Amino acid sequence: MAAQQATSLHAVILAGGSGTRFWPLSREQAPKQMLKVFGPDSLLISALNRAEEVIGSEGKVHIVVGESLVDELHNHILSHQKWGSIPINYIIEPAAKNTAPALALAAAVVEVQDSPQATILMLPSDHLTENGSRWVETMTAAVEAAQDGSLVTVGLHPTAPETGFGYIQASIQSSSAAPEVERFVEKPNRETAAKYLAEGNYYWNSGMLVAQAGAILSELELAQRNHPYADAAAGNKDMVVTAKALAQNPADKSAIDTFIHLAKEPFDKAALELSARVRVVPTAFDWSDVGSLLALEALQEANEQGTRVMGQGVDVDSINTLNYSSGRLVATLGLTDTIVVDTEDATLVAAKDRAQDVRLIVDELQRRGAPETKHSQTSLRPWGSWTMLTRGIGYQVKEIEVLPGASLSLQRHQHRSEHWIVIEGTAQVEVDGRLHTVFPGQSTFIPVGALHRLSNDGDTLLRVTEVAVGDYLGEDDIERLDDKYDR
Amino acid sequence: MAAQQATSLHAVILAGGSGTRFWPLSREQAPKQMLKVFGPDSLLISALNRAEEVIGSEGKVHIVVGESLVDELHNHILSHQKWGSIPINYIIEPAAKNTAPALALAAAVVEVQDSPQATILMLPSDHLTENGSRWVETMTAAVEAAQDGSLVTVGLHPTAPETGFGYIQASIQSSSAAPEVERFVEKPNRETAAKYLAEGNYYWNSGMLVAQAGAILSELELAQRNHPYADAAAGNKDMVVTAKALAQNPADKSAIDTFIHLAKEPFDKAALELSARVRVVPTAFDWSDVGSLLALEALQEANEQGTRVMGQGVDVDSINTLNYSSGRLVATLGLTDTIVVDTEDATLVAAKDRAQDVRLIVDELQRRGAPETKHSQTSLRPWGSWTMLTRGIGYQVKEIEVLPGASLSLQRHQHRSEHWIVIEGTAQVEVDGRLHTVFPGQSTFIPVGALHRLSNDGDTLLRVTEVAVGDYLGEDDIERLDDKYDR
Repeated sequence: MAAQQATSLHAVILAGGSGTRFWPLSREQAPKQMLKVFGPDSLLISALNRAEEVIGSEGKVHIVVGESLVDELHNHILSHQKWGSIPINYIIEPAAKNTAPALALAAAVVEVQDSPQATILMLPSDHLTENGSRWVETMTAAVEAAQDGSLVTVGLHPTAPETGFGYIQASIQSSSAAPEVERFVEKPNRETAAKYLAEGNYYWNSGMLVAQAGAILSELELAQRNHPYADAAAGNKDMVVTAKALAQNPADKSAIDTFIHLAKEPFDKAALELSARVRVVPTAFDWSDVGSLLALEALQEANEQGTRVMGQGVDVDSINTLNYSSGRLVATLGLTDTIVVDTEDATLVAAKDRAQDVRLIVDELQRRGAPETKHSQTSLRPWGSWTMLTRGIGYQVKEIEVLPGASLSLQRHQHRSEHWIVIEGTAQVEVDGRLHTVFPGQSTFIPVGALHRLSNDGDTLLRVTEVAVGDYLGEDDIERLDDKYDR
Repeated sequence: MAAQQATSLHAVILAGGSGTRFWPLSREQAPKQMLKVFGPDSLLISALNRAEEVIGSEGKVHIVVGESLVDELHNHILSHQKWGSIPINYIIEPAAKNTAPALALAAAVVEVQDSPQATILMLPSDHLTENGSRWVETMTAAVEAAQDGSLVTVGLHPTAPETGFGYIQASIQSSSAAPEVERFVEKPNRETAAKYLAEGNYYWNSGMLVAQAGAILSELELAQRNHPYADAAAGNKDMVVTAKALAQNPADKSAIDTFIHLAKEPFDKAALELSARVRVVPTAFDWSDVGSLLALEALQEANEQGTRVMGQGVDVDSINTLNYSSGRLVATLGLTDTIVVDTEDATLVAAKDRAQDVRLIVDELQRRGAPETKHSQTSLRPWGSWTMLTRGIGYQVKEIEVLPGASLSLQRHQHRSEHWIVIEGTAQVEVDGRLHTVFPGQSTFIPVGALHRLSNDGDTLLRVTEVAVGDYLGEDDIERLDDKYDR
């Protein structure tokens, strides 16, 4: 199924999104790309699957992500049956600076690891996109078009006068499968969007890009040199040099410092709008940028009143309303044009026409230091997952699921003792060198400072309730002495 | 502070309310009267306190309640420092039949235990009422007025053209402190309510009643004999006879069966509207029937947009909205005229003008057999309380709080083992006759079938996490062999 290309292919997945627009489903440590609400796989795993359809098993996968998220993201991928065992190159951004610095860094890394002619497919990790033949055809055409050094964008045929997307205007002189781009236009008003729709050579900007590593870097350099608003992005004149320095040595302190002080800049603004070598591959596959919680509505048909109830909910007499629950009971009564999104530890209720403003809530919560913006109650691990059931002064209770054949790291804690009660399956427990087998209904005790490890040698799921008691219960009170996942 | 009366005084607290209008705060097993949302005491305990101010320590307290609620209610009262040690007579209704059968039963019991001249103060358990001197003066006047055999109601001076209450029209011929009642009127429309407000001799019907036991029974009998709608309430001709039989012998099977088949009938309809001996004591104390979740708004001033955030909530740009949370994080954004009421296990979001229709949600949930209509996550016990943290197939996790000096019953389970991990305080644990002391961070194990008891001999709170594992985890798998609270 993979495209047959003379050039080597590198998928660059941008996974640095903070996910504030999808709160409370998304959190800093579980952004949109890690959510499984749109299917059995997360958006990130779906993006990896789609990338593989184009680059094949010969291609290389790079994920660009920030230091603060890389551990969770790594655990997330390790917990996936297939992607947990495929080599992925993690490119750590020293800071989140939008797509231009991120792509510059990735292109520099690909140039060092391969060559300037290596072709990059830059894919967002948090969009919903159709896969299969239309997808592969489109991306294969983009790869072909990129071989002359062009920056190749992917444009969706508009199906409605959408005001939430940027548009790409294609040249009408060209009959190519990848015509040249006349210009990029910001989110238009409804009237302008309707005009674009009628004219036929305007496309929704999907945010995907295909280009050779060297072309990305040289077009960025050229654009930055001739930047029409030199003041605003003055610091970004060093962007490519800095990216190249970091690609050579990710620990280069001076380069890290420069990167941290770059202006936040999207690649569209930094290069595409200024470059003369941009093309667009028009396509018609299904695509959504999952731009707000309203994207959840695509999951289910509405009832006659325009209302959707998803999860454990009940509605009486609401109109054009979304009642979305992750597990708790949510009842809606007589609402109009409202969205309710419920998670284990936080609930959002918003007017539908304010769905784009959820970040105002997140901003306010961050000002208050609310933990509900940082973590979700469940965290995936390479060996399974844990869910926080309750947390109080001096104790916390978690449910731990260990996959068949999996094993936690050999570890110890300085500030807490742990009680493990087996609910389902059979646990192998090592405590200070001694091995026990623990059956359902039985428990074991891990004193403060004891070296311990929990394993599931069986072929069914192991479920354990963990009660931890101590004066400090943070995730960082863990000393790993051995880990089969090399964390 | 108690009223000095020649007659003996009996407070009859009607506590059979099902609390559907206050869901999700109220549940079948934790109805409105048991909630502590309006202050440190529940509405029921507040009603007991107010009753005592009138009847004094010589008076007797009766609580009318159904079989299905009496255990929870008893535990609730036993857990109160003062009322846990005051003798209360529980009158069990064989079925919930509204106030007429309940009051007939209570009057019959008082007549048997005391005399037909004994005076009853019938008080709802789920209203908010001012206490102190105005309250005592009003009720003392009502007691005096009842000594000629009258049925004495309590009417509130209306302060607004309220359409949610019934009204009592007082005679304008009388200059008595307790004028005769001309008629009762159902909830009026706004225009009519405004007229009542202007005329000055209309009062809100508080639902309280003061009358001698014999007068209640004889007026009920008289009214039922001459009942104008004999068909509708035909069965209720036996109401008084049945009540008297049950008062003599609460186990009388024939009487229980007759009671169960009575029509549901409020005392207003069954007697007051038909009796010629009804008076009203007008008063002006603060009162609310806590008729819907909107009563929560009385707890806090609104902001400039008319919005209130109570509990762990955050709001951005909502108008005339109530954001009420019992502990979880609730965020509201851009709402108008909306109420959000959040509890540990269920959330309600409703248009404000539908607050009266919450029972529609409860009806639907009951059809589905949803447990969230039956129990709340926390249950008071004479020894403290427990809170359900999580429940899954084959296990559940509770947090248990044991008051200083308190002790759970000596008990055993046939279907589950229990692990107790001490979080705070010191536990005394008895297992099959052996005594252990368990300190914070330590645990103990109770095998299936073992006789066990948990006690707190210390002088600080004991907090324990209980993990129960077994094939059946219902509250009825408990065999009590000894209980210091005689349950």
